[in-house]
Order: sequence, then structure tokens, then C-alpha cells
Amino acid sequence: METRTEISSLGEFGLIQRINKGIRPTLPDTVRGIGDDAAVIDLGEEFGLLTTDMFLEGIHFDLTFFPLKHLGYKIIAAGISDIAAMNGIPRQVTINLALSNRFSVEAVDELYEGMKLACKDFNVDLVGGDTTSSRSGLIISVSAFGKVKKEKIAYRNTAQPNDLLCVTGDLGGAYMGLQLLEREKQVFMANPNMQPELDGKDYVIQRQLRPEARMDVVYELEEAGVIPTSMIDLSDGLASDLLHICAQSGVGAVIFEERLPIDEQTYLAASELNIGAATAALNGGEDYELLFTVSQSAYELIKNNPKITFIGYITDKKGEVELHTKGDSRVPLTAQGWNA
Amino acid sequence: METRTEISSLGEFGLIQRINKGIRPTLPDTVRGIGDDAAVIDLGEEFGLLTTDMFLEGIHFDLTFFPLKHLGYKIIAAGISDIAAMNGIPRQVTINLALSNRFSVEAVDELYEGMKLACKDFNVDLVGGDTTSSRSGLIISVSAFGKVKKEKIAYRNTAQPNDLLCVTGDLGGAYMGLQLLEREKQVFMANPNMQPELDGKDYVIQRQLRPEARMDVVYELEEAGVIPTSMIDLSDGLASDLLHICAQSGVGAVIFEERLPIDEQTYLAASELNIGAATAALNGGEDYELLFTVSQSAYELIKNNPKITFIGYITDKKGEVELHTKGDSRVPLTAQGWNA
Repeated sequence: METRTEISSLGEFGLIQRINKGIRPTLPDTVRGIGDDAAVIDLGEEFGLLTTDMFLEGIHFDLTFFPLKHLGYKIIAAGISDIAAMNGIPRQVTINLALSNRFSVEAVDELYEGMKLACKDFNVDLVGGDTTSSRSGLIISVSAFGKVKKEKIAYRNTAQPNDLLCVTGDLGGAYMGLQLLEREKQVFMANPNMQPELDGKDYVIQRQLRPEARMDVVYELEEAGVIPTSMIDLSDGLASDLLHICAQSGVGAVIFEERLPIDEQTYLAASELNIGAATAALNGGEDYELLFTVSQSAYELIKNNPKITFIGYITDKKGEVELHTKGDSRVPLTAQGWNA
Repeated sequence: METRTEISSLGEFGLIQRINKGIRPTLPDTVRGIGDDAAVIDLGEEFGLLTTDMFLEGIHFDLTFFPLKHLGYKIIAAGISDIAAMNGIPRQVTINLALSNRFSVEAVDELYEGMKLACKDFNVDLVGGDTTSSRSGLIISVSAFGKVKKEKIAYRNTAQPNDLLCVTGDLGGAYMGLQLLEREKQVFMANPNMQPELDGKDYVIQRQLRPEARMDVVYELEEAGVIPTSMIDLSDGLASDLLHICAQSGVGAVIFEERLPIDEQTYLAASELNIGAATAALNGGEDYELLFTVSQSAYELIKNNPKITFIGYITDKKGEVELHTKGDSRVPLTAQGWNA
């Protein structure tokens, strides 16, 4: 009898761990393989960065409310964000596309309009890919190649005790945007004559539908002369991604609820949907902001950058991440995050 | 009213042409974007090569007869083959995987066993990727990064009149292997007690299930001091891929039926299934052999390499590809190939 182990018994992270355990780089120019936002390749003068992601209709996006142009933009931005998270400069991207015959040529045009716009915004070239047919909706994979000066690379596993923890932009918006869009979809499905109630919610909707990769901050850190001691992009959520940094660096962290940057619209949407705004900020993914650490000496150099918020610091308590709440209690964070 | 144009009205190549028309590289280090086996990136001393492909269950492979270990191997080999087709050396690959819960952990292990074996055989590192869930079977995308010395790169669009046309290995085997496997599947579905009749067909079955990327020939050309004047890998089929070289180089070609390298098992299977062996060689895809041109002066340097067959030559008749049959007639080749 063959053994059959269900993937669900391991979970997604368990499966990935199992896969990764058996894989070891062997080439001298593979500086870093699996386990960071991008693989790192020694190109001599510089490091090359290589990353890839896949997005499936019905799993990662819902085309009943996701405009194809925005989807194209978001997928390129997601690839770029992984390069940004290494403190790198993206250069080239490739796209694989699988389409069912439900899609028209005009729909494909829309998707590529969004991709081309993102390529222009982030100054990258779309240099290749594969187009094929699908029996099950739209599937897109993106790969991105970038470069970084060797001394400027930021890994996940190099945070040091007493480093300061920073995030860019604001958190939880993409998650709240998704909740609102899904609510409106339910309303519409129940009664197609209902108009969507999204007035005054444009910012969080945009956070979901058209996120930006924070290349602006990568450039501003360079101008400020600051190299993050570690960095990751916030695709899974602050709690989960901070735990990655801590686990891989062998450190802990303390973050302060009152320091979490949350937009007014995120607060309003959270209140309307009865979700804690801090929960959205901690657990909500897809913000594509950067989470990074800097040494204390960098504080003066970036404290006036309005795009950067100091949310806590790194400790030597390996793997322990603690949230100091507004009510002054201390709550351990898990990958599932924190429920107020 | 919005216009709706069906993708089928353009066809796969038409759609790809439409997409590509609107995409132009803008960065100085993008040497070659869409339109070759891999994108070419200027790394200073050398060129970097970047390529990607996607494979979907039910479209590109049938798991009722495709062992997962072989599938893993084949997908890595397909990525490597695109690097080989630029006369490059593959270094790193990434894999994205989408799985439905029909797959067990053991099945995923099998798939990765095949990938790891291919990585070892082709001396590349598996450096990253994404694992996600799917509602519709198995989807895999592969990206490969490689390098090539600038003076050694082989493009598709640089064949010259009077160059000699070469192929590696033999042709049509992967296609005949697929036909046999599909026949046995039909037999089995009609009567599950029937045993498969695949005795003496191991070579063509292997050509379908476990193709090799021809890195061996890339290294042997280097040892011989020969740089192909153009090159492409045979994934779509000789006719289609030769037409790519001719169209992109602005040249024509003459090939000789009697020169087509076809294995004995391919002949036997073709005869058994009432398919012309030359048709299989011309139209059958997935052989992952290399089709390349060399200047006449290279002839002496590689004529004794048993892996290389000279099948014809390049002419100045733009876009015209002619097959000289064994019966001494001359037949124009189209992308759909040739039916004897």
C-alpha cells in the first residue's frame, strides 16, 4: 500500500518547508536560493535578483469585481515588490498567461494595458513569456529580474537586536478594500439592481485593486544613505512577515499598536464591517508595503520621511514577537496574527 | 456596445503577435526582449538570459499516463532548453506550483524528485518559487536564468544565406510517444483489464516523458570552436520552428526529407499508427532538440559529431521553406507542416 498524506495535514507553510528542505544550492554564483523575497545570483560586480509568483482566478483574484487592467498592474507590482524587498532595482519582467476562451481579445488588451502601465511606472521592460489556453479561467505567473549593489542588499535573516522596525505607507487598507468589494458582490448577487456603496472608500478599494511596489522608498533610502539591516515585503500581512524576519534572523521583536500606520478610510471600513483596524493591519495581506529594520544610527537620517513609520524594535528573544496594545497589555503575535 | 473579438479568430500566434506589437524594451540593458527563446540582458561582461514557460494539466500533460517524476524532469528540461537555444549556460531556475487537494504530499515529493534530478543533470540550482492551491488540477510555471559570453550568443534572426542547417538528435519521437500513450489510454479506458502494448517502444515513450535539453551539444559546439549563426529549440516542431528562424532572419531554407534524422522506433510507431514518419518529424513538437545554422566553414569542425545532422541550407528567398522529398519533388513547408 502506498502512503497518502493529505497536503492539508501539513498546511501551505508545512508543504513549502518540506519541499525546501530537500533543495540545496550547489553553484558558486547562487548566493541565496529559496527562503527570501528573491533569489540572489552573483554577477561579479553586482548581485542579480530573481523572483517569481503565480496568481489564479478564483484563488487570488475575483474577476467579478477586479478590472483586468488593474489586475495586470497589480501582478507586475507584486513581482517588483519582491525585488524592492531585497533593496534592489527591478529591470526586466516576464509574464506567462493561460486564458480560457471566455476571454476576448479586448480583455487581453486590457490586462496588458495594466501591465504596460506598471512597467512604465516602475521603469522595467516586459521581455517575454508564454501565452497558452486554459480550461479553468485566468492564470498568470510573473517573474522579475533585478540588480543590487552587493553592499546594499537587504536579506530577511540579518535583523539585529536593538534595530528599529519600520514600515512604509499604511497597513490593512488592501484587506479592508477586499472585504468591501466582497460585501458589494454579495449584495449585487442578491439583488442586481442595487448600486454599490463605495463612496468615500476609494482609497481602500485602490489599495486592493491597484497596489504600488515601494520603489520610491528604496530610492529614498539610498539617497538618505541608509541600508536596511533586513527587509521583506508585506504580502502576507505584518504579523506573518515580521515573524519571517524574526525566525530567519534568530531574533524577536516588540511592536506598538499605537504606532501602526492605519489610514482613516481603513478605520472607517473596519468599523463598518466590525473588524478591528489593528487586526486588519496585522493580518491583512497584499499591502505590498516594505517592512524593514535599520540600526539606531539610521534614525536621524529617515525620521522625517513621511512614508516611513517606526513601529517597534528588534530584541534578542528568538522568535518572540510581542504587540504592546493601546491598553498597555502585551500580546504575543502568531502568524495568524492577533484578534483584539 | 463594446466590441468582443474571439481569441479563436486570431489564433494563438495571432494573439501573441498582437500582444507583442505593443511592447517595446526601453532600458539600455535589455538587449533582446520578446521574440527569441530567452530575453537577453546586458550584465556588463556577459549576457544574462531569462526565459519562462507554463504547463497546465489537461492542456500540456495528461497525468493518467504522465508520471509526476518525469513531469518534474521535463519541465525543468524545457526551461533549460530555451537557455541552450541561445547557446547559453543555465544557472538558476524557479518553479511556481498550483495544486488541487487531489494531490498528496507524496505526489508533490515525486514531482520534486524529478525536478531535482533534472537540476543535477543540467547543473542548475532551484532557487525559488511559489506554491499555491488550485481549483483545477496541476499548474506549473518554470523560469530559467542563464549566461552566455557576448560573442557566443545565438539568436533566431541571424541566419545567413548559404549557412548550413543542422539538428541535434532525432525528430518526431516525442510526438509518436504521445500518440502511443494516448492510444493505450483509450484502450485502457475501454477495457481496464487490457495490458498496455508498449514493448519495444521504450525509446519513443521516453522521448515524450523524459526529454533532455541538449546542453551536451552546446558544450561540444564550444569545444569545436563553432558558434551557430542562429539557433532555436524544437518545441513546436521542425517546420514551425524553422519558419521562425527564416521569418525572423529574412531568409529561406531548403531541407531534404532523406536527411531528416528519424529513429527506427519512430518509423515503426508511425507505421503502426498510419502516420508518415516525416510528418511526425516535421510537425511533432516537444523533441527539445536544437535546430541551428552554421557557416559553411564550420562543416569540417562538426561533421563527425554523431549528435548533429545536416538537413539542408539557408537561401535568400525570404520566408520560403522548401522540402525536397525522397521522391524528388519540392514542397513548400507551412507552420502546419507537411502531409505526405
